[in-house]
Amino acid sequence: MKRETSGVTAPLGFEAAGLHCGIKKPGILDLALLVSTVSGPIAGVFTKNRVVAAPVILDRRHLRRHLGRAIIINSGNANACTGAQGLAAANTMAHSVARGLSVPVHQIFVGSTGVIGRVLPIDRVKTGIQALISQLSVRGGRRAAQAILTTDLRTKTVAVRTKIGGRVVTIGGMAKGSGMIHPNMATMLAYLTTDAAIVPSALQRALKSTVDQSFNCITVDGDTSTNDTVLCLANGLAQNPTIRPGTRHYRQFEHLLAQATQALALAICRDGEGVTKVVTILVGGAQTAAAAKRVAATIATSNLVKTALFGEDANWGRIMGAIGRAGVPVDPHKLTLRFDNVVMVKQGMGVGLVAERKIARVFKQNEFTISVNLGQGRAHARMWTTDLSFDYVRINASYRS
Amino acid sequence: MKRETSGVTAPLGFEAAGLHCGIKKPGILDLALLVSTVSGPIAGVFTKNRVVAAPVILDRRHLRRHLGRAIIINSGNANACTGAQGLAAANTMAHSVARGLSVPVHQIFVGSTGVIGRVLPIDRVKTGIQALISQLSVRGGRRAAQAILTTDLRTKTVAVRTKIGGRVVTIGGMAKGSGMIHPNMATMLAYLTTDAAIVPSALQRALKSTVDQSFNCITVDGDTSTNDTVLCLANGLAQNPTIRPGTRHYRQFEHLLAQATQALALAICRDGEGVTKVVTILVGGAQTAAAAKRVAATIATSNLVKTALFGEDANWGRIMGAIGRAGVPVDPHKLTLRFDNVVMVKQGMGVGLVAERKIARVFKQNEFTISVNLGQGRAHARMWTTDLSFDYVRINASYRS
Repeated sequence: MKRETSGVTAPLGFEAAGLHCGIKKPGILDLALLVSTVSGPIAGVFTKNRVVAAPVILDRRHLRRHLGRAIIINSGNANACTGAQGLAAANTMAHSVARGLSVPVHQIFVGSTGVIGRVLPIDRVKTGIQALISQLSVRGGRRAAQAILTTDLRTKTVAVRTKIGGRVVTIGGMAKGSGMIHPNMATMLAYLTTDAAIVPSALQRALKSTVDQSFNCITVDGDTSTNDTVLCLANGLAQNPTIRPGTRHYRQFEHLLAQATQALALAICRDGEGVTKVVTILVGGAQTAAAAKRVAATIATSNLVKTALFGEDANWGRIMGAIGRAGVPVDPHKLTLRFDNVVMVKQGMGVGLVAERKIARVFKQNEFTISVNLGQGRAHARMWTTDLSFDYVRINASYRS
Repeated sequence: MKRETSGVTAPLGFEAAGLHCGIKKPGILDLALLVSTVSGPIAGVFTKNRVVAAPVILDRRHLRRHLGRAIIINSGNANACTGAQGLAAANTMAHSVARGLSVPVHQIFVGSTGVIGRVLPIDRVKTGIQALISQLSVRGGRRAAQAILTTDLRTKTVAVRTKIGGRVVTIGGMAKGSGMIHPNMATMLAYLTTDAAIVPSALQRALKSTVDQSFNCITVDGDTSTNDTVLCLANGLAQNPTIRPGTRHYRQFEHLLAQATQALALAICRDGEGVTKVVTILVGGAQTAAAAKRVAATIATSNLVKTALFGEDANWGRIMGAIGRAGVPVDPHKLTLRFDNVVMVKQGMGVGLVAERKIARVFKQNEFTISVNLGQGRAHARMWTTDLSFDYVRINASYRS
């Protein structure tokens, strides 16, 4: 397996483009198009939010046919809370791409991210779509990845490949980040492409499973924005034996997709607003995986833990407090708490100042691991979190200005 | 009814004192004592955290006898995650007070707040207790209120009175705040005193009910620290007809206690770490009170909402996002969203730029109200929240330094 950096256009048969169409300030890319030269299976995972943006409504409808050809994404405007007018705008985006590419409209998918409640300047978007189609190229992946960003500092792309059934299969991807991710995502968008030959049910199952182990581990289950979307489009051009659920080839594909989604999820963490640290939370010794995840999520979303990470203040008591209020029956006397390899709490008690001095050094690293053992069972969970910094407040206090 | 400012010593028969015993840096008060001249009924409400500090374990045990005489509180050290040694320290605190006042130890209650996992310097505390007893006075309420603070900027006290059965009944109180309160409390301590004659069951019921409508509305149910404690000590010196549950006198007393707890809860909000705004969240039109509270809590604890409040950025889309992910079945097309008296969202859609300009002015106020109507039923809930500011991060990133 070899990692590339060319993103969504790394697999065979994909082209992309990105440009400024006039939603954002002049010069800032705000419209991206991603196209496969042939139609193929598409899978999707969407926000669990009850307030859903127009493009999510459209994508869910189009996904019923399991067939995709192109994805059009704008940034700067979420097209959410915009009613019938918003749905019409999303439809217009899909129709413009469909006409330009001469493919059925249900093969076109739409994504939007940005400010909620503003009407999309649809004429500018339509003009932009015409230009995008003329600019499509294999080298357009980077500009497409730029055009979907909002407060992100860096583009986030991935490409991984492996041999399946004797043929090289590639998965590419791009993503945009999401506020501080925790505890409530600003919009998270991720688009994955692959030249694998795969049946739609296998693609959907692999996407659901790998999203749960990646993007859903940098957020809290259900805590999603109005627009969150992950799509994976496959075109079969790798000419591998078609992948079906439950086979060895399926497991190879799922493993490859897990690498891609995890790389994008961590890139989102590292590029989180004002992030200076990315910390892995491991919770083991739980009675159920759900309990383990709940404890991990409570630590990961605690503002007191996150500010302590930023301040490099080895305030392990805040982690004990988070464990205790996770809503899971824990026995404090069985708790072990470790920072990287340093045990700080044994049987629920701090082990002393020597350990405190050691963990103070752990806290100075950019990335480290907090491990909790509940001493109750064998179930475990992993999440990633980030610190809460001055810059997080600065960026989010003035997002629309 | 007339409001006083003298706090816990406002009711008849209470004395208090506060001093520096040596837990904190020289000169900063860190030990408080509150004593009634006669023993009387005491009620308590404690943290729901599974990891519980030693003084909470002790208080719960002493509370079984429903009789109190004095409360000793230290700041600077939470005496949590300190195992058997911590429990011994809490016991020593209670015994020192009991000996000094010549009363049974089960009438003494203990509170601690500060850093978790450090051993309490119990000898200094014992010496401090001797001095406190000699300093007890009716004018000691303010120093006691100072001695229980940690990162608080201001002391928080209250005194309210009314006539019950022809006699003037007074309730006094002091509290210490709690980080940013949302979404996870640093320790919140509140001590209420009253000269009412009241049976223990009525006192406990009134305290539970008013805490739910005050302190539990500035936090999220269950999201409590290892040390959170609210106690109410009554001594009967007002000589009113003894208050029993379900009577008119009970309702009068509960109403008075609600005023006191709400005043302290709002004082905690206003003095929250780095707080520049206190915002009331009203959620109406819900099918159940629990659903209304869940929506209110999701808005109140959203970091994206809280940073928008700090930035005076009228980013109402973040509130729509929070409503949608609250885990309550809402119909976006029935949603109304109002800022003070300005309707911003009707039937789930933004009403336009004129309203946006008006709510921008609402956001510039120090205190205002965000009202949501779900359009589904008649149940409602109220919570208070605060903004998330640079100072919140600054204070919490370096709490222990």
